Amino acid sequence: MNLGKVVGMVVSSRKDSGMEGLRLMLVRYVDENNKETGTQVVAADAVGAGPDELVLVATGSSARQTEATDKRPCDAVIMAIVDSWDIGGDIKYRKSDD
Amino acid sequence: MNLGKVVGMVVSSRKDSGMEGLRLMLVRYVDENNKETGTQVVAADAVGAGPDELVLVATGSSARQTEATDKRPCDAVIMAIVDSWDIGGDIKYRKSDD
Amino acid sequence: MNLGKVVGMVVSSRKDSGMEGLRLMLVRYVDENNKETGTQVVAADAVGAGPDELVLVATGSSARQTEATDKRPCDAVIMAIVDSWDIGGDIKYRKSDD
Amino acid sequence: MNLGKVVGMVVSSRKDSGMEGLRLMLVRYVDENNKETGTQVVAADAVGAGPDELVLVATGSSARQTEATDKRPCDAVIMAIVDSWDIGGDIKYRKSDD
Amino acid sequence: MNLGKVVGMVVSSRKDSGMEGLRLMLVRYVDENNKETGTQVVAADAVGAGPDELVLVATGSSARQTEATDKRPCDAVIMAIVDSWDIGGDIKYRKSDD
Repeated sequence: MNLGKVVGMVVSSRKDSGMEGLRLMLVRYVDENNKETGTQVVAADAVGAGPDELVLVATGSSARQTEATDKRPCDAVIMAIVDSWDIGGDIKYRKSDD
Repeated sequence: MNLGKVVGMVVSSRKDSGMEGLRLMLVRYVDENNKETGTQVVAADAVGAGPDELVLVATGSSARQTEATDKRPCDAVIMAIVDSWDIGGDIKYRKSDD
Repeated sequence: MNLGKVVGMVVSSRKDSGMEGLRLMLVRYVDENNKETGTQVVAADAVGAGPDELVLVATGSSARQTEATDKRPCDAVIMAIVDSWDIGGDIKYRKSDD
Repeated sequence: MNLGKVVGMVVSSRKDSGMEGLRLMLVRYVDENNKETGTQVVAADAVGAGPDELVLVATGSSARQTEATDKRPCDAVIMAIVDSWDIGGDIKYRKSDD
Repeated sequence: MNLGKVVGMVVSSRKDSGMEGLRLMLVRYVDENNKETGTQVVAADAVGAGPDELVLVATGSSARQTEATDKRPCDAVIMAIVDSWDIGGDIKYRKSDD
């Protein structure tokens, strides 16, 4: 999986029937220091992710292993919202309470 | 999935029988600002995409999860035509009416 | 799929039994202007491609969706020989008659 | 598979049900000289890997072929802890006893 | 598939049960001129490859299509030892007899 930040949403009305009902989020990948890598992906949302949230994105066939994405022509899914991560015990990111 | 722009079509008469009847589009990938990334892909068209349309492309085994591409030796599919997307609420692209 | 040009052949006598009988072609990837990208792949040939022909290569699990490559440990296949492609209606490549 | 070094852990409480119970490790990829490549991945842990351990990471659908990750939306797994490796008979890394 | 050269072996005693009995080789990728590309992969050996041999590596789900790797958490396999390859009829590599 890769770390990413939800920055927007993609809207499509004309699409394969297998894509009906999926929310498609624009996600910028970030590195271990929560710095944007400069690449992005459009991922289906399986967990109710919102703007600016840090998330995990799974790609490839693994992106179809959620209830929301099963058997769909979808190659990237947000399957977790990140609370925090550390490097060597140092917290690099912690989701703020609000 | 990745954002892309349909720029052309690839014609092939001698091909694996599993590819019969598929329209193969040349798609340039674009980034979140609708700027071309410099890479392209040949994708099967599952949604009737036309020239200059902004689309979503799914790759890998997910590209076979449409009715058009099921069980075919096809690793990229156009599975949605994009109406619009935003970043932080700012519309970065909106399909024009015509 | 990606566009490529057949430039050679790879010979192997000691191989997994699943690879018996497959022709393995050396393919240089080309971009939309038929310019070599500098990368190459070894792909099984499912369509009888010959030297210097422009082809389409499918990779990953999709490379096993031809009769020739079904259930084989093969991650790239030539599944079409390209007749032509265009960008915005301008023919960028057309196979010559000979 | 790729060589990597476990450097941290990612915590997520809101996630797809298929991710329940998996430890998610932050892994920096290293090259054959045990030098970090500058890229990282978040991988599920199938072998009880700990901080600073050198591991092997499998990605894609192969990441779902462990008991821990079967049918989960997980595209990277730590499936081995590395004892040592050599290049041309020269040991490049050996796990220290402690 | 990609061309590579076997340069070493990776040893792991603590690993997922699905990896038992597999030899894990360190393989440097080479290009069409048999020049190392600077990247490497750890691949399971399905053909008895030895040091310095030129091989073909299949990745992804295709890496599980050999008897040795079936259903294992393995994303790269050596599935052929290369005898030779040519570009435009010029032999670029031929395995020496010894």
